Amino acid sequence: MRLNRWDEFPIRKSATNPSYKLAWDRFGQKVPADFLTWQANIVSEYKRPDQFITHCFMPWLTSIDQFAATRKLDVAALNVYHGSQNDVTGEDVMWADDFYRSVKKINHIVTETNAQAIGWDSKGQYPPFDGQARLFTYSHIASGANMVEYWHWHSIHYGQETYWKGVLGHDLEPNRFYNEVSQTAHELQKIGPKLVNLRIKNKVAVLYSRESDFGLSYMPFKNGNAYLDVMRQMHRAAFRSNLGVDFVLAENADFSGYQILLVPPLYVASDALLKKIADFVENGGHVIMSVKSGFCDENSVVRYTKAPGPLRKAAGFYYQEFSTIKSLSLRDDPFKVGGEKNKATDWAEFIIPETAKTLASYDDPFFGKYPAITENKFGKGSFIYEGCLVPDEIQSKIVAAKAKEIGLMGDNQLTYPIVTRYGTNDQGKTIRYFLNYSGKDQSVIYNFDKGTDLFGGKALKKGDSFILKPWDILIVEEM
Amino acid sequence: MRLNRWDEFPIRKSATNPSYKLAWDRFGQKVPADFLTWQANIVSEYKRPDQFITHCFMPWLTSIDQFAATRKLDVAALNVYHGSQNDVTGEDVMWADDFYRSVKKINHIVTETNAQAIGWDSKGQYPPFDGQARLFTYSHIASGANMVEYWHWHSIHYGQETYWKGVLGHDLEPNRFYNEVSQTAHELQKIGPKLVNLRIKNKVAVLYSRESDFGLSYMPFKNGNAYLDVMRQMHRAAFRSNLGVDFVLAENADFSGYQILLVPPLYVASDALLKKIADFVENGGHVIMSVKSGFCDENSVVRYTKAPGPLRKAAGFYYQEFSTIKSLSLRDDPFKVGGEKNKATDWAEFIIPETAKTLASYDDPFFGKYPAITENKFGKGSFIYEGCLVPDEIQSKIVAAKAKEIGLMGDNQLTYPIVTRYGTNDQGKTIRYFLNYSGKDQSVIYNFDKGTDLFGGKALKKGDSFILKPWDILIVEEM
Amino acid sequence: MRLNRWDEFPIRKSATNPSYKLAWDRFGQKVPADFLTWQANIVSEYKRPDQFITHCFMPWLTSIDQFAATRKLDVAALNVYHGSQNDVTGEDVMWADDFYRSVKKINHIVTETNAQAIGWDSKGQYPPFDGQARLFTYSHIASGANMVEYWHWHSIHYGQETYWKGVLGHDLEPNRFYNEVSQTAHELQKIGPKLVNLRIKNKVAVLYSRESDFGLSYMPFKNGNAYLDVMRQMHRAAFRSNLGVDFVLAENADFSGYQILLVPPLYVASDALLKKIADFVENGGHVIMSVKSGFCDENSVVRYTKAPGPLRKAAGFYYQEFSTIKSLSLRDDPFKVGGEKNKATDWAEFIIPETAKTLASYDDPFFGKYPAITENKFGKGSFIYEGCLVPDEIQSKIVAAKAKEIGLMGDNQLTYPIVTRYGTNDQGKTIRYFLNYSGKDQSVIYNFDKGTDLFGGKALKKGDSFILKPWDILIVEEM
Repeated sequence: MRLNRWDEFPIRKSATNPSYKLAWDRFGQKVPADFLTWQANIVSEYKRPDQFITHCFMPWLTSIDQFAATRKLDVAALNVYHGSQNDVTGEDVMWADDFYRSVKKINHIVTETNAQAIGWDSKGQYPPFDGQARLFTYSHIASGANMVEYWHWHSIHYGQETYWKGVLGHDLEPNRFYNEVSQTAHELQKIGPKLVNLRIKNKVAVLYSRESDFGLSYMPFKNGNAYLDVMRQMHRAAFRSNLGVDFVLAENADFSGYQILLVPPLYVASDALLKKIADFVENGGHVIMSVKSGFCDENSVVRYTKAPGPLRKAAGFYYQEFSTIKSLSLRDDPFKVGGEKNKATDWAEFIIPETAKTLASYDDPFFGKYPAITENKFGKGSFIYEGCLVPDEIQSKIVAAKAKEIGLMGDNQLTYPIVTRYGTNDQGKTIRYFLNYSGKDQSVIYNFDKGTDLFGGKALKKGDSFILKPWDILIVEEM
Repeated sequence: MRLNRWDEFPIRKSATNPSYKLAWDRFGQKVPADFLTWQANIVSEYKRPDQFITHCFMPWLTSIDQFAATRKLDVAALNVYHGSQNDVTGEDVMWADDFYRSVKKINHIVTETNAQAIGWDSKGQYPPFDGQARLFTYSHIASGANMVEYWHWHSIHYGQETYWKGVLGHDLEPNRFYNEVSQTAHELQKIGPKLVNLRIKNKVAVLYSRESDFGLSYMPFKNGNAYLDVMRQMHRAAFRSNLGVDFVLAENADFSGYQILLVPPLYVASDALLKKIADFVENGGHVIMSVKSGFCDENSVVRYTKAPGPLRKAAGFYYQEFSTIKSLSLRDDPFKVGGEKNKATDWAEFIIPETAKTLASYDDPFFGKYPAITENKFGKGSFIYEGCLVPDEIQSKIVAAKAKEIGLMGDNQLTYPIVTRYGTNDQGKTIRYFLNYSGKDQSVIYNFDKGTDLFGGKALKKGDSFILKPWDILIVEEM
Repeated sequence: MRLNRWDEFPIRKSATNPSYKLAWDRFGQKVPADFLTWQANIVSEYKRPDQFITHCFMPWLTSIDQFAATRKLDVAALNVYHGSQNDVTGEDVMWADDFYRSVKKINHIVTETNAQAIGWDSKGQYPPFDGQARLFTYSHIASGANMVEYWHWHSIHYGQETYWKGVLGHDLEPNRFYNEVSQTAHELQKIGPKLVNLRIKNKVAVLYSRESDFGLSYMPFKNGNAYLDVMRQMHRAAFRSNLGVDFVLAENADFSGYQILLVPPLYVASDALLKKIADFVENGGHVIMSVKSGFCDENSVVRYTKAPGPLRKAAGFYYQEFSTIKSLSLRDDPFKVGGEKNKATDWAEFIIPETAKTLASYDDPFFGKYPAITENKFGKGSFIYEGCLVPDEIQSKIVAAKAKEIGLMGDNQLTYPIVTRYGTNDQGKTIRYFLNYSGKDQSVIYNFDKGTDLFGGKALKKGDSFILKPWDILIVEEM
C-alpha cells in the first residue's frame, strides 16, 4: 500500500470543493489507521509478553493520522532522514523525535535514518563529516529515542537503492562511517543504561493540526507547504533557544502542563478547539499564533463572522481583509534583527485592534494602517498574533522574549549551535546533553548542578567551563 | 462547454501542419458562434421588447470568434480582470473596453470584473488601494461601458472560488471596498444619465487578426504569445499618449474614418486584406506595422514570393532572410529612449530597402547591413515597418511621433499617468474624463472648452489648473 | 520506427533495477541493428556494383548501437546539426565526423546538416554569418567526410519543417546562403579530387562506452548527461590543441596505434575491458580517465571490491567513499587556470593513493585529505585519474601537457580558434587545413613542409605567414 498515492485518486483530484476534499482526506487517513489497528490486534494474540509491536512512520507525511494509527502499537517508530555535511541543523533530527515522542507520550525508537548517504540516484551523496554520525545518534537519544537503527547494514549492488548507502559500502569492508558507528555503539554498551528511557517534561508545545495543513493545501496562500514551514519555524525558534518542545495534536488537544503554546496557521478548527485555546490564555497560558488561524470551521468552510471568529475576544482584534504581499519592512525594526531580516512576507491581514496592542507595523503608506503583529492580555495570560509571515530571526526573537518574560529560560545561557537537552533517567538522575552543532570548537560554561561527564568521568560544577570539539558531545549525569 | 479545451482535441494536437491546424481552429470557432446564434434566435422569440440578449466574453480568449459570436446578440458583455495595488495600469482595463465596444460598434457592458480580490487559491489576493475601485468603474464608463457589474456580491464560504472575493467579504458585513462601491453608485445615481451611451469617435485603429495569432502559435518565433504582446503594446503606445483607439477585426476590415492603422504581426492574411492595407496608405492613411506581416496566405501557407509579398510596393522593401536575436542596440539611439531601452529584440528581418528610408539600424557588424525600422511614402500616405520587436518606449515614440506629425494630438498635452477620454453624451454635450492612474497627486492644466466639474459643480475654463488626488477622477461636461 | 521512443516502453520505465534496464536497452539497440542488417542484405542482392548502401545516423543518439547497425552498410552517413552565428565552435561539427569516421574505420559522408536555419518552430532561426557555411563544409571534409549534403534544397511552405530552412528560402530564388554554397561547390569541382578520401591517422583516442552512458542514466550523479558532457569535453580538449582524435568503441576496443587514451566515466565495463586498459598502460600507453570508471561490471552491477576494482593497480589508488560537491577550489591552482576556473565540481571520490602521486588537491578542511587528481606510473606508461569533474580549461591543460610530454604536439604551435587538420590524399600527398573559427582576422605562421595554397595557387614554405580572414580557410597541398 503506497499512502502517498492517496491524493492521486481521481475523485479526490476532481473535487474543487475544499470541504469535499477534506472528507476524502479524512477517509484516506482512516484506511491505514484501521489497517494497522487490525494488524496489531492480530499480532497481539500471538506475540510473547517481551515482544512489542511497532511500525515505521515518516514524520512529514501529513496524509497519515499518526494518532489513530499508533493507538494499538506499543511503540511509535520513526523513519527520518536529515541533512549532512554543511546542511546539518540538529532541528531536522530533533523535531521528528519531539513529534513521535509526543504522539504516544512515551519514548519512541528510530528504525531508519541516514547511514553513509541517501538517494534514488547518485545526485545527492553526502557522507557526513567526521563526528556527525555520532552526533546524530546522541541527538535522537537526547530527544527520547530508545534505539537508533540505520537503513541499512551494507550498500546493495543493484536496484533502486544502490546509492542509498549502508553502514558498509559496496566493498563490504570497514570504513570511516563504520568506525564511527562502532565507537558510538561501544560507548552505548557502557553508558546506555543511564541514557535509555529518558523522561522529558517540556513547558512549550506546538499545536499540530493536520486538517489545517490539508485545508491550506486546497487553497494555498503561498508556494510550498506554508503549514509545515511555519510549524517547523516555530519549533526551530524554540529549539535554537534550547527550549524543549512537545507536540499537541489537534485531535487530542490537552494543553495542561504547558506555559507556551505555539500555533502554526490553524486554518481549520472547530469552535471547541478555538475555545480551548482562549481558555488556555484566560487561565494564564501564553499563545503565539500565526496567520489564518480560526478562518475556517472543522469542515474547511470559511466562517461567516469577522475573522478570527471565536478567537476575536482572546486575540483582541478583528479583520475583514487580507492581501498577498511580497515583502514589507517593519517600522523601526521592532525586533532588532537588522535591515535585511526586518520584514513581513507573503501575507498580511488588515488587523483592526480592539483591545490588542501593536508589537510591529508595516513601513508602508497603505499597509501601515494595520498592525503586523499584536499582543493581547486576556485573563491571566497573553496572546501574540502574527498577521503576516516572518523570517526565522523574528520568530526566534518573539518566542525567546516570551519565554524569558515568563521565566522559562532559567539558568540556561546557551544557544544554538550549542544544543542542550535534559531529562530524568531510570535511576532518577538528571541527564544533561551538550551537543555541538558546528564545525568549530565551542567553549561552554557549565551552569548547572554538580555532575559527572559520562564519557571522561570528570566532575563538573557550576561555573566550570569546557571545550566541545566540532560535532562533539558531552553528557553529564547530575548528582 | 469549456472552450479553452478546444486545443486539446487529439486530432488538432497531432496535426503538425499549420494549414490543417488552422482549419480545425476555424471549425472550433464556428461551433460556439453557431451555438450562441441559435440560442439568441430562440430567446428572441420570447423576450419582451425592453429586454436584451447578451453574453459574457473574456477579452484574451482568441479561440472564440467574437465577431460571429455576437452577431445575434444585442449587446456584447465583457468579463475582464486586471491588476490591482501597484499593478494598476489602466490599459489592462481599457483595451478590453476598446475591443468589445469595437466588435459590435455600439456601447457594451461589463458583466464581470474584480471586486475585492481574485484567485482559485489564495496566492494572489490583492484588494485595491483606496480609490482604485472607483477609478476602474469610471475608466470602463469613459471607454464606452454602459454598466459595470462585479463578480460577485459576497464572497462564498467554500468551493473553488472561495478566494474570488465579492463586494462583501466572508463576514457579509460592509467593508472598505463596499463603501467605495457605494460611494460610486450614489455618484452614478446622480450623474449617470450624463455619462451613459457615450459616443466615441477615434482616429486610430488596431487591426486585429485572430488567424495571425493562431498561425504564430503553430510556429512561434518567441516564447509567450507574441501576437497578443505586440497587439497590446501598440494599444498601450496610443493609450499612453491619450489617443483613443478602436479595433478593426480582420474578418470585417473597414478602415474608413481612421488616420492611423496599427498592425500587430499580420502573419496570416489574404491577398485581399493586404491590398486593403496598401490602398489605405495610397489614399492617405498611415500604417505602423510589426514583423512577419504578409508572410503567409489565408491558409497559413508561406507565400512563395519575396516577403512581405503583396505589401512589397507599399512597404518599399523586400526581405529573403530573418534571424532570431536576443537583443541588439540601435545605432545612435534614433528614438532617444536611452541606453537600456534602445534596442531591438527577438527577431530581425534582413530588410533590403527599395523605396523605403531607414528609421533605425542595428549597431552590429553583421545585422547592421539591414535596417531595423523603415518608413515608406506611398501615394498620399506613409508606411512604417518594424522589422524587429521593440520595447514599449520605442513603440510609444513611433506612434506618438506619427500622431503629432499628422496633427492628431490636438490640444492634448496630457500623458500617462493622467489618462483622458472624451465623447458625446445623449444630450449632445462633450464629456471629458481625467483619470489619475498613479498613487501621487497630479497637477492638471485644463486645455479645453468651458465646462463644469460634474462632481463638484465647479466651472472650468481653458488654462485653469486642478489637482487630481491619487487614483482620483474629474469629469467635465463642456458647455 | 522512432528509436527515441524506446525508453518510453512501459516495461523499461517501470524497472528500477539498473541491470534489468540495461538488458532492455541492449535489446532496444539490437532491434534497429538487426533491421538495418536485414535490409542491407536484401538491397545487396539487387544493387549495381557502383552503388553503395548507407543510412543516416544522428551522432548523439546513444540508444542506437552504431557499430552493429553499420556492419552491413558500405558507408556510415552522418546527420549533424550545429551552432551558427556566435555559437560556432568547430568541435560540434568535427566530433561527429571523428565519431562516424571511427565507427567503420573508413571515410564517411554527411547526409544532413544545417542549411539556412533549423527548427520545428521559428524560435531559433540563426542563418550563418558570411563565410560560416563554407567553413562548415571544409571542416567536414578535413575530418574525413567524402560528401556534404544539406537538409534541404528549398524551404517548404507548410508542415512541421516550415522553418527548417533549405539552401533556397521560401521565395525559391538565389540568396546569400545559396551564393556561398555555389562558391564552395565550384571550388570543390576544381580541387575536390585532391581532398576526397583523405586518410587520417591519429594518436589520440576517446574510449566510447554506450553502456556506461546507459548505466549512468539509470543512476545519474548530476543533472544532464554527464557521460556525453565529459566525453565531449575530452574531445574538445584535444580539438583545441589541434590533436586529431579517433573514437574507439568499447564493444570493439582496439587501442593499438594510439598513444593517449581518453576515458570518459567508464561506469559499466567488464573485467576484460578494464584489463585491456591496464595492459595498454603497462605497455607504454597513457590514459586520462574520469570519475566512476570501473565502478560497475558489464551488467551495471556495482563491484563488491574497493573501487576502482580491477583498475586499482594501474591507477595506483583505491577509494571507499564519494560525495556530491557543488564546487571546490583546487589548492594552489595546480593547472594555472586562474581563480574562477580553478575548481572541481559535482563529484569527489575519496581517493587513498597507494602508488599514485597527487596532481591536485581540494582546498577544503574535510575534502582536502583526498587527492582530486592523481597520476600513476605503471609499467612503461602513465595513468592520470580525475576523481572529480573539472572545467574545460583544466581538462585542456591536462590533455595538452600529456601530449607535449610524450612529444605528440610536434611542430604544431597553432591552437584554437585556428583549427588545423591533415591527412594523405589519393595521390599520396599531405593535405593540410587551416580553419579560422573566429570572426576576426588571424595571423598564421606556416610551420610545415613546402606546399601550395590550393585556392590561390601561392607557394608556402616553413616560416611564411599568412592572414586568415573571419571564418576563412586555407588548404595546402605539400610537395
